[in-house]
Amino acid sequence: MAARQVVNSVRRVAIFGGTHGNELSGVFLVNHWLKHGEEIARPGIEVRPFITNPGAVEKCVRYVDTDLNRVFDSENLRSESNSNTYEVKRAQYINSIFGPKGSEDAYDVILDLHNTTSHMGATLILENSKDDFTIQMLNYIKNSMAPLSCYVLLIEHQRLKYATTRSIAKHPIGVEVGPQPQGVLRADVLDKMRSIIKHALDFMNYFNEGKEFLPCSLEVYKVMDKVAYPRNANGDCTAFIHKNLQDQDWKELKPGDPMFFTLDGRMMAYEGDCTVYPTFINEAAYYEKNQAFTITQKMTLCAQAIRCTPPK
Amino acid sequence: MAARQVVNSVRRVAIFGGTHGNELSGVFLVNHWLKHGEEIARPGIEVRPFITNPGAVEKCVRYVDTDLNRVFDSENLRSESNSNTYEVKRAQYINSIFGPKGSEDAYDVILDLHNTTSHMGATLILENSKDDFTIQMLNYIKNSMAPLSCYVLLIEHQRLKYATTRSIAKHPIGVEVGPQPQGVLRADVLDKMRSIIKHALDFMNYFNEGKEFLPCSLEVYKVMDKVAYPRNANGDCTAFIHKNLQDQDWKELKPGDPMFFTLDGRMMAYEGDCTVYPTFINEAAYYEKNQAFTITQKMTLCAQAIRCTPPK
Repeated sequence: MAARQVVNSVRRVAIFGGTHGNELSGVFLVNHWLKHGEEIARPGIEVRPFITNPGAVEKCVRYVDTDLNRVFDSENLRSESNSNTYEVKRAQYINSIFGPKGSEDAYDVILDLHNTTSHMGATLILENSKDDFTIQMLNYIKNSMAPLSCYVLLIEHQRLKYATTRSIAKHPIGVEVGPQPQGVLRADVLDKMRSIIKHALDFMNYFNEGKEFLPCSLEVYKVMDKVAYPRNANGDCTAFIHKNLQDQDWKELKPGDPMFFTLDGRMMAYEGDCTVYPTFINEAAYYEKNQAFTITQKMTLCAQAIRCTPPK
Repeated sequence: MAARQVVNSVRRVAIFGGTHGNELSGVFLVNHWLKHGEEIARPGIEVRPFITNPGAVEKCVRYVDTDLNRVFDSENLRSESNSNTYEVKRAQYINSIFGPKGSEDAYDVILDLHNTTSHMGATLILENSKDDFTIQMLNYIKNSMAPLSCYVLLIEHQRLKYATTRSIAKHPIGVEVGPQPQGVLRADVLDKMRSIIKHALDFMNYFNEGKEFLPCSLEVYKVMDKVAYPRNANGDCTAFIHKNLQDQDWKELKPGDPMFFTLDGRMMAYEGDCTVYPTFINEAAYYEKNQAFTITQKMTLCAQAIRCTPPK
């Protein structure tokens, strides 16, 4: 018989928008909910919409000084240096409200809203493969989104994991919807993001009401590696995403398949050992990170049944 | 019998990239051609690829201080003020090389390469409905691109026409290909732009060789008006492109058709008098210009036959 995890009820949830200031679905949804909170209200839960990087939102850029979604490590969160960037100061402020990261006082759940120029559709980002509560929530969202596809990206990786804004919560969830150009609001992308938030909040509501969520399995795409753009000695990109790979996020990429092309007409094939599932293909913000796409492998996670601690 | 215009042969052609630094197809094509000019060489024609806004290209932004593609008016080109912006200084420099605008010394043709986040496909921008040489060239390009669609946008409008970078040439041609997010290079978009340039250069080559181009008619979309985003008293957008209008560039928009939606669920319909053809729908760079889309009407231009002045 499967074990059942008993978890405390969900009391405090944050919805972050504008962690990257030019990813507009989250910016406009959070600004809307700050004025009209009924849509995200659930009984017994404090749901707090919050613009995390107002300086970047104001300028409609990804960040002012540094990427806010990479600085929530203990070194930056503790730094008292006078030369801290705008985003490091913001990170400390955000941590003081929604954290402290890793403490009992941290918010239960943070849903952090992002857009991508990649054709990733509705994507949920999971940080921890052992977090049964979050796996159950993502499974619920994914099933509720059907027949629309909803993918789960697991970013648990010793070398490639980064210190996200949402990582201060006990249960951090990234919401990544695309394709949407930076600085544009698309109705279709907004609808998907809004549905994800509705289902996430519904899940927490049912959970708090005592509903038992039975053991489940969840198909995820686990980050394995990143593929860089070929560059010349000056650091300029010399090859770009091949048309056969463009917009093919989550689809099989086999050894020998076209990966890059050059402007003088050469094709460069993928030379890995096995079939992989690329994602974040041709994301605008990753040119400066020298990341042409992310390689994932499909796997299945299992979560135990969960049920809320009965009220005392 | 139709008249025939006899025009001087084409001697000097410029191909501009990076007028907007985050529109990458032109940036990478021009940088490629600066090193590998064979592809754009044509006998007897000086074809000069040129990065117009290197400061913006370096930062991968539209512009540094002001939009370069709006400052080629006589006031800016003549201004000796110490407070001239980076782009005004660049405009004067560009005018000194490829102009002076309106003079006999100006380049014959400038092809200025742009991208848009709108679903405009391959688009050619015409500034002057009386310019038979350019109409003949665009007609040639359009026919050569078939069966791919290639649209012609005529921006001749007393109030809405603006002073483009290419306007210093005798025959200015804008090349606008989308959809492509800012800061991204897509293979499909690059291919279309590259084909347009090939056909444009081929046309000039045939023309110089003495080929007569017979009278032609060309379907164009003439700019009639711009539609602004609804805003509140703080200047914030309160409505966005409706999903029925998104990606529908060049398609009919009828009175009563959905145009905008609001985050609280309202639809706003187009209330014009007649059917129009919208374009530049949801272009990222036009949020700050408060332009949700451009309204055009379809019309047909006619051009006389043209033939090159026989060599002396």
